[in-house]
Amino acid sequence: MSAHLATPLETPVAAPAPTFADAVARLRALLKGDLDAVNGEILARMTSPVQLIPDLAGHLVKAGGKRIRPMMTLAAARALAYDGDHHVKLAAAVELIHGATLLHDDVVDGSSLRRGARTANVIWGNKESVLVGDFVFSRAFELMVAAGDLRVLQVLSRASGVIAEGEVLQLTTQKNIDTTFETYIDVVDAKTAALFAGAAHAGAIIAGAAPDAETGLRDYGRYFGIAYQLIDDVLDYDGSHNDLGKNIGDDFREGKMTLPVVYAVARARTEEKSFWRRVIVEGRQEDGDFEQAAALMNRDSAIADTIACARQYTDRALNELRHVEESEYADALRDLVQTSLSRIT
Amino acid sequence: MSAHLATPLETPVAAPAPTFADAVARLRALLKGDLDAVNGEILARMTSPVQLIPDLAGHLVKAGGKRIRPMMTLAAARALAYDGDHHVKLAAAVELIHGATLLHDDVVDGSSLRRGARTANVIWGNKESVLVGDFVFSRAFELMVAAGDLRVLQVLSRASGVIAEGEVLQLTTQKNIDTTFETYIDVVDAKTAALFAGAAHAGAIIAGAAPDAETGLRDYGRYFGIAYQLIDDVLDYDGSHNDLGKNIGDDFREGKMTLPVVYAVARARTEEKSFWRRVIVEGRQEDGDFEQAAALMNRDSAIADTIACARQYTDRALNELRHVEESEYADALRDLVQTSLSRIT
Repeated sequence: MSAHLATPLETPVAAPAPTFADAVARLRALLKGDLDAVNGEILARMTSPVQLIPDLAGHLVKAGGKRIRPMMTLAAARALAYDGDHHVKLAAAVELIHGATLLHDDVVDGSSLRRGARTANVIWGNKESVLVGDFVFSRAFELMVAAGDLRVLQVLSRASGVIAEGEVLQLTTQKNIDTTFETYIDVVDAKTAALFAGAAHAGAIIAGAAPDAETGLRDYGRYFGIAYQLIDDVLDYDGSHNDLGKNIGDDFREGKMTLPVVYAVARARTEEKSFWRRVIVEGRQEDGDFEQAAALMNRDSAIADTIACARQYTDRALNELRHVEESEYADALRDLVQTSLSRIT
Repeated sequence: MSAHLATPLETPVAAPAPTFADAVARLRALLKGDLDAVNGEILARMTSPVQLIPDLAGHLVKAGGKRIRPMMTLAAARALAYDGDHHVKLAAAVELIHGATLLHDDVVDGSSLRRGARTANVIWGNKESVLVGDFVFSRAFELMVAAGDLRVLQVLSRASGVIAEGEVLQLTTQKNIDTTFETYIDVVDAKTAALFAGAAHAGAIIAGAAPDAETGLRDYGRYFGIAYQLIDDVLDYDGSHNDLGKNIGDDFREGKMTLPVVYAVARARTEEKSFWRRVIVEGRQEDGDFEQAAALMNRDSAIADTIACARQYTDRALNELRHVEESEYADALRDLVQTSLSRIT
């Protein structure tokens, strides 16, 4: 992978390169004790005398996902030799912020499937998802407060606001065929990368990182987050490699201007502009349109260039890790980024 | 008003008793400088490069409301001779938490009118209201963090969770004709009183209150909050005195089991049970049903007893103020409670 070549690290990288799933498994094994504690924290915070809350929140927690964000908090703290236990609370808080966002996103997008399971809004309803999302979000803040570090609170409350800003910005780009590359990267930077950055940053701060390591880990999270979202965007058009457990083509059906669409629209021939206008702007989609969109994306390198763009961001993420001393945690974080393109390629 | 008789205070109370609007105006005049600063904080925090955010949040802020919650924070701090400026940030945070809740409530309830203006969900849409609500909520936390007091953060993040719990509990009681008095008071205690309590409590903590004054102000806020909500509930059935600027009968149309309904259902004659079942449980409402419901409530003292219940809570609120030394701020807080029933009577 060219990402290997781009990293300035002098340490040799093991070959053959592991897959992203391998890297996640490695990180999970390394952080097993911490992750168990995170799960305990999350479950403890989802209790309520109002039965619907543990039911719905439990569904969200059980559906689980890869826990990449909390692992970034944990690994960042551990990479800096942190030996307290506040990083567990912060990692749980990060996962709960993510969970609250998912509950609201699925309402906003009208999604019915996530991580291979029916979404909470489909099982319990939109109203319930909105309110339980608020509950989960509040609990996330309680956890952060319990960790007792005002700078972390500042970073993560700011990140939460930026996520919401990104979601609103995305809403305004939806069905807007004139959305530019720059605007779309702004969307991704806010809606996805802000929490990746906040997660790693929180781990660094709680561990008392030196300034370079702190901003390094923050920016590692940020660039990795952008790459991660771009890969998700490709997977929405590429069923053969989909590991999202959500419906392929969801983005397309919702008229989302993700990077593959931005590129494809920019490169469309005159007679194809009306196709994009019909399916994205007017939202009038027919059988075969999705396949047609994917075909145009492949013909015009929209998918390939989205992957290339993601690779640029993985390179930048790896580069930021130079500020962090060598350790198995730092190495596992590097692995995560180096393998992330394997979700597609 | 009997609330006057119930208060253990020895200081004479000015007669004739002012109205609630007078008490609000008095408090507003007393806190003018602080309230201007609160408005400045709120506007400063609602800026965003994503234009929809200041537009929608500005609509919420302009619609304004009475600012009772932030005034409780400010007055609690001032009553304890606080002379810093963190109470302004906290008051702004409290108003933003309230604003975020309103945005989400109006989506959940499908409301179209609030404070005499069209709601944000009607103007901009449900998705937009959910996401901007999240943004506003995040900004509230940023403000609290800026105030820098971990105990206040604990109190207000806990309050936010309780509000959401109360909203979910209310959702489960909606159209449930078996809802009891106790459950409904639990709903009110959580969805409304928790923020009133948190608002006054935050002001007390930031001012370094003695333990008695701190819990006194917290419980003052709590009991006042319960009374305030019960009065709102009555106003939804009593158009002649409505000052809510929302649609009369909204609660009824949504099948909300507010206290007047709980009482009326419990006291309904056998042949009237089917009326309540049809309009509340089945939600099949016809012309004249609202008037019929209001008539049954009046006949069976459901309205009068809700007012009596509210009065019990205003008495308790006043009683809690005994822990706070006399000052014009304490007196204005007392006034607010003593006059609150004047919204109906």
